[in-house]
Amino acid sequence: MHKFEEKTTKTESIFQGKVISLQVDDVLLPDGNEAKRELIKHPGAVCVIAITDEKKIILVEQYRKALERPLVEVPAGKLEAGEEPSYCAERELEEETGYRPGSITHIQSFYTSPGFADELVHVFLAEGLKKVEGGLVADEDEFVELMEVTLSEAEQLAKDERIFDAKTLWALQYIRSNGLA
Amino acid sequence: MHKFEEKTTKTESIFQGKVISLQVDDVLLPDGNEAKRELIKHPGAVCVIAITDEKKIILVEQYRKALERPLVEVPAGKLEAGEEPSYCAERELEEETGYRPGSITHIQSFYTSPGFADELVHVFLAEGLKKVEGGLVADEDEFVELMEVTLSEAEQLAKDERIFDAKTLWALQYIRSNGLA
Repeated sequence: MHKFEEKTTKTESIFQGKVISLQVDDVLLPDGNEAKRELIKHPGAVCVIAITDEKKIILVEQYRKALERPLVEVPAGKLEAGEEPSYCAERELEEETGYRPGSITHIQSFYTSPGFADELVHVFLAEGLKKVEGGLVADEDEFVELMEVTLSEAEQLAKDERIFDAKTLWALQYIRSNGLA
Repeated sequence: MHKFEEKTTKTESIFQGKVISLQVDDVLLPDGNEAKRELIKHPGAVCVIAITDEKKIILVEQYRKALERPLVEVPAGKLEAGEEPSYCAERELEEETGYRPGSITHIQSFYTSPGFADELVHVFLAEGLKKVEGGLVADEDEFVELMEVTLSEAEQLAKDERIFDAKTLWALQYIRSNGLA
């Protein structure tokens, strides 16, 4: 047991949605006082660093309702129940971009919002991309636009705040540090 | 208006908490179909890259109830209503670590979970640190432990998944790329 562990004395389930659920826990703090924690449960997600043979970074632009604006991001998507992250990464890449990778390698995972949510994102590197015949069969409620950009174009998109999320900005640093594009 | 914009036809407020709120929006998709979006509203947050004169990175370990485990992170905290992010960064740094910066510079902002939440984190670089007399007046329900580590020690913490969140992993890449520690 960690010395700062917060012992749960009560859990109240507030909402069970299609994507997230919300609960409020009463906890006992290390000093014996009580507090409430508002907690989001999320199935987890993957994102994919995918670089074409021409050293272009594959990105997708989509409307993000939570922000009421579009964002340009690395291809990403939620894990389905019981789904292997590497399988999910290949699936999302193909659905959103029409590319199928020759290999897919896990390079990092991270929690995105540990203060209130348990979302864990697994980052994969996709290599040996081949365009799939047909391709682009996105989820029925998802509308995305494919972009293929150089690293300096991606960094300009970040300066312009069209790329503006943690996983994609982490990915751009990774691409630069490792000379991938 | 963006071509993929999702027009809200109904908003249902589900929960208003101390930290987050939850609403479910009915939206009209670009193809005219309808969908539901589960959305978390968050006040936004800051985090601080703080390096001592001895080139040690200042980190804090705390228990994260959402994950039911402790994490080692860069000092961070939520914005209070109307609070200037740079002021919040100085405040959180002093509360959590007992250090006051000579200067504080905004270097990046990012959304952490754009798929379901509007949390925006502002990253600051704190320089010219001075230990404050007294110091360490954390929030009453916050228990954190100060760590001062080299970059290679921090990278080992990341390999060991004790550092395991997007903002801190972004920060470590930034520190390495810019030769800060």
